[in-house]
Amino acid sequence: MSHRVVIIGGGFAGLRAARALRSAPVDVTLIDRRNYHLFQPLLYQVATGSLSPGQIAAPIRAVLGRQKNTRVLMGEVVDFDPAAKRIMLADGAAFEYEYLIVAAGSETSYYGHDVWRPWAPGMKSLEEATNIRHKILYAFEAAERLSDPAERRAWLRFVIVGAGATGVELAGAIGEIARQTLKNDFRSIRPQDAEIILLDGGPRVLTTFPEHLAKKAAQSLASLGVQVKTGVLVKEIDHDGVTVDRHGTMDRLPFKTVIWAGGVTAPPLAGTLASRTKAETGRGGRIKVNPDLTIPNHPNIYVVGDLALADGPNGRPLPGVAQVAMQGGTYAARAIVRTLEGGKPLPPFRYFDKGELAVIGRAAAVANAFGLHLSGFAAWLIWAFVHLTYLVQFRSRITVFVEWAIEDLTFSRGARLITGPSPTDFDFNKEMAGENR
Amino acid sequence: MSHRVVIIGGGFAGLRAARALRSAPVDVTLIDRRNYHLFQPLLYQVATGSLSPGQIAAPIRAVLGRQKNTRVLMGEVVDFDPAAKRIMLADGAAFEYEYLIVAAGSETSYYGHDVWRPWAPGMKSLEEATNIRHKILYAFEAAERLSDPAERRAWLRFVIVGAGATGVELAGAIGEIARQTLKNDFRSIRPQDAEIILLDGGPRVLTTFPEHLAKKAAQSLASLGVQVKTGVLVKEIDHDGVTVDRHGTMDRLPFKTVIWAGGVTAPPLAGTLASRTKAETGRGGRIKVNPDLTIPNHPNIYVVGDLALADGPNGRPLPGVAQVAMQGGTYAARAIVRTLEGGKPLPPFRYFDKGELAVIGRAAAVANAFGLHLSGFAAWLIWAFVHLTYLVQFRSRITVFVEWAIEDLTFSRGARLITGPSPTDFDFNKEMAGENR
Repeated sequence: MSHRVVIIGGGFAGLRAARALRSAPVDVTLIDRRNYHLFQPLLYQVATGSLSPGQIAAPIRAVLGRQKNTRVLMGEVVDFDPAAKRIMLADGAAFEYEYLIVAAGSETSYYGHDVWRPWAPGMKSLEEATNIRHKILYAFEAAERLSDPAERRAWLRFVIVGAGATGVELAGAIGEIARQTLKNDFRSIRPQDAEIILLDGGPRVLTTFPEHLAKKAAQSLASLGVQVKTGVLVKEIDHDGVTVDRHGTMDRLPFKTVIWAGGVTAPPLAGTLASRTKAETGRGGRIKVNPDLTIPNHPNIYVVGDLALADGPNGRPLPGVAQVAMQGGTYAARAIVRTLEGGKPLPPFRYFDKGELAVIGRAAAVANAFGLHLSGFAAWLIWAFVHLTYLVQFRSRITVFVEWAIEDLTFSRGARLITGPSPTDFDFNKEMAGENR
Repeated sequence: MSHRVVIIGGGFAGLRAARALRSAPVDVTLIDRRNYHLFQPLLYQVATGSLSPGQIAAPIRAVLGRQKNTRVLMGEVVDFDPAAKRIMLADGAAFEYEYLIVAAGSETSYYGHDVWRPWAPGMKSLEEATNIRHKILYAFEAAERLSDPAERRAWLRFVIVGAGATGVELAGAIGEIARQTLKNDFRSIRPQDAEIILLDGGPRVLTTFPEHLAKKAAQSLASLGVQVKTGVLVKEIDHDGVTVDRHGTMDRLPFKTVIWAGGVTAPPLAGTLASRTKAETGRGGRIKVNPDLTIPNHPNIYVVGDLALADGPNGRPLPGVAQVAMQGGTYAARAIVRTLEGGKPLPPFRYFDKGELAVIGRAAAVANAFGLHLSGFAAWLIWAFVHLTYLVQFRSRITVFVEWAIEDLTFSRGARLITGPSPTDFDFNKEMAGENR
């Protein structure tokens, strides 16, 4: 019988690991709570109505369907038994493994303020993205209906917390919606009057980018009407505003729409894994791993992707980005194959940093890639190329390209739908009071 | 000041009415609970994972954005005051009109058994369609996880109630999913073993089509593995089965997935309108209208689309289909313009029946159009042409065409996503017990 490898998670890391095992003499079982792989870097485009969920998600079964040694299961892993080499699912099922690759990803962190979640959805799932789309588009509808200038203004104010790549891209896209997409669509309001406020506790946007590129990004944001407020700490979020601490001064911003791009943390499963394997956890609950991405004293358990806390070349932990996840997944698979073949162990995992990209509105971006620092259209071209290349499924590549081409020519957005969890109970009054959120 | 026309509803009827008024000396206000126009005839393709919601829905604002005399509002009309020529919205706002066009559509009817709704979602909204997609795809995932043959069989049994065009198209698409799309995707189950059962109380499928075409459709369904059971009345639906009465014999079908394509009824707003205008209502709560589509004694209130009960050429009421709605909307708009111009009243509304189409799986359909009776690929070509032509937005036309082309070449489906209302609360056990539905 061939060797059993269980992979937890069908994100970038898990999927790469599964693919890298396609010709290995192993039985692979990939388990995910979802039936699809989500292309997270484009989630903000769903949230802002450019793309439909189906265009940035691919059924895991379809991606791995032809891989004969691999089985895909939809289920939720809840516990580990490293001694018996077994994982347990929420419904009581158990699976044995010889090698385990844990790629369970991360979730939105409110830094201890989970009560903010209902008012400030994060950007991790398709459901959150369509919820954010609902909020953004609905705000303009509500403003159009109201005559009180203060209320109208509150509905036309959008606050984004966190000025990393996600926050910057989201703010730019909302700026474009207000200035271009909706320009002619309303009669009582001018969508261009919308205020888009990007908050961050740090000193500038895109802190991981070189300073001059961050400056370029800030300029692009300003030209789309986005106000960047740095050095600002969020103290409170509730149904009609946010309270911020700006260098010791408290300030209150009344608004109706806030989106959380603040940060991520490990899922609860990380704590369970750490306690069962006696692994150490670090910042955000991530699991400290050996240079070969295994858990100390558990050479058959690999942790890859956002969940892993691995040291980078400069001694700082590797960032939780798609590239690290993909390379880590491939590495774990290769290391397992090498062990099974009885060869020399692989050298420690080394992350090859291809760079960073962030797009700000239409045909503008900043790129720090392969030693090049680019901004504007050239950076956007790289961004578009890289993202289209990585989109897993052939069909997505075509339709996404068509959507982008049309959008660039017409400024229209194809997926501007306000859909909601309870269509039949839709209630404008409740919505106005924030109760539908 | 120009004349005020208020249109309730942005479906086929309301949108056509608004467009037909684009050059008239009127101020048009179109009010809808949604911000988008939904192309209902393709809703089953969202439910079966071929298309994404964004591809069959267009923002009403985008469609009417360039029409300077028209304002679009998102809101829910709850009452009428015909004496004051005023309508009232749920949030207390009121709008005055000189002419009113009521095109509020229809909703799913469970024929008095609304308790069945949680188990048997209908096919009227995007939310219902994505919910159905979740149910269909999840059923295969659950079956893959189970070892008990009886349980597995129950999960692989799909029941569709109602063998009109929607039910037939849905059953055909599920047959195709089981036989083609998912063919290679599972390891423990054979998706081809899924049972798809199409129930109807009438004597045959597609009762509005000529008998020989209905027979062709039944053959196409059979070739996709769909079992058609006619003359069957549904007596009870609950969380794990349906009880049917077949010519007096009670029968119980255990299953996990049922979809309701049984029929429609007028929304509650119809009752309010009838009581305020003393209008008569007929079957399904539809409002009886004059030959010119106005309500008796209210020459300035038009009722069009599914909500109207108008006599057809053969004395039977006109069917609740998109064509009747579109033609009715245009007629009402023209009648208003004629009155404002002081011209001779329009002759009574006459429905020009262009025929009927139903598609069964890949590249097969039946068509009863322009006096021609077609089936197979020729009918499918007409179907594809008609539907692409009618899709309101340019961009939808392109991407839908691309999706269909890829699907026809590869049998894959681009939007096979299991999304749900409460992702973070996803619970396999609950799902198995039907509690997540």
